[in-house]
Amino acid sequence: MIQPDARTKLLDAAIDVIRAQGYCATTVDDLCRAAGVTKGAFFHHFTSKDAMAVAAAQHWTDVTAPLFEAAPYHADPDPARRVLAYVAFRKAMLTDRPLPEFTCLAGTMVQETYDTHPEIREACGASILGHARTLIPDIQAALDAAGRTTLSARSLAIFTQSTLQGAFVLAKAGGDPTIAADCCDHLTRYLEQLFIKDTAQ
Amino acid sequence: MIQPDARTKLLDAAIDVIRAQGYCATTVDDLCRAAGVTKGAFFHHFTSKDAMAVAAAQHWTDVTAPLFEAAPYHADPDPARRVLAYVAFRKAMLTDRPLPEFTCLAGTMVQETYDTHPEIREACGASILGHARTLIPDIQAALDAAGRTTLSARSLAIFTQSTLQGAFVLAKAGGDPTIAADCCDHLTRYLEQLFIKDTAQ
Repeated sequence: MIQPDARTKLLDAAIDVIRAQGYCATTVDDLCRAAGVTKGAFFHHFTSKDAMAVAAAQHWTDVTAPLFEAAPYHADPDPARRVLAYVAFRKAMLTDRPLPEFTCLAGTMVQETYDTHPEIREACGASILGHARTLIPDIQAALDAAGRTTLSARSLAIFTQSTLQGAFVLAKAGGDPTIAADCCDHLTRYLEQLFIKDTAQ
Repeated sequence: MIQPDARTKLLDAAIDVIRAQGYCATTVDDLCRAAGVTKGAFFHHFTSKDAMAVAAAQHWTDVTAPLFEAAPYHADPDPARRVLAYVAFRKAMLTDRPLPEFTCLAGTMVQETYDTHPEIREACGASILGHARTLIPDIQAALDAAGRTTLSARSLAIFTQSTLQGAFVLAKAGGDPTIAADCCDHLTRYLEQLFIKDTAQ
């Protein structure tokens, strides 16, 4: 019997299992076991593991977007402080939980699939770059207020995500989550410097 | 017949194939085909694919370390300019070649293996953090010259690598190598700001 929410259970399981062991190493059996559903249910909802991966990247966005939308970093009236509060929010997510639970599904999957699975790369790219896009208005307002007219807000928004993805890789490599928190501090310092009024321009 | 350099051929092939398609998706057959050696040769040199991965991370260091040692960024008498020239060197490596060829073997492998293969994680960590360590003396001298006494040179050296690893992930996600070059420009701007003499301290 297919449970009504078997699809969601499988996609939730994908988020957990793939972040811990990577995409290729995750079998359909792994996902069914973690989700507590049958293989029949899997193939009722997804034509293939690759089709599931595309849906999982979208599910990742669907799960994380409301979390960011409801987060307190939007409250400050000052755009620069909102951007810095966003980084502080990301840093707080890194503490008190094991590495696989704070890393990024899309960043993990894209590393293995970008050259061989264009549709998975596309879905991961949409997730990461879509999240970067939510930061552009605040970054643009902060750069405008600082008189930083030559810097691209989009480029800086992408850099914030690149810093976080790199922080995850280094934390994994060093087996040490504090490395990721440290990288957030460097990003904060860089942004603070950019958001100080540029009197030279 | 095992060729004398079959081991090196296999490790060179591992660098190319794993960077393009990830570690798990790379089979022993893939590596033998790319290296032009037999499966017998593979298992003569490596007890398993995982043992090969550990050797490949070390081989990656052995191949890249002389490249960095001989690079022109060491020539400048000023340590801050040496660090900035290092980033410029890394940025130059990103242009005019396809994505798989400028990304990092260790950063790609660790993303899939950190939680399930401690020995591969360890080898990838040694490669990435070992390279970061080569930057510490110049970064320390540049921070000292700028009067930045509260900033850790080790932490900043790790951040340079985290920026590069994140740049690779975002370039893959966006399907666009120029994203990585752009991230190098942000890193350069951050370092330039840090290396200006801090008159407030």
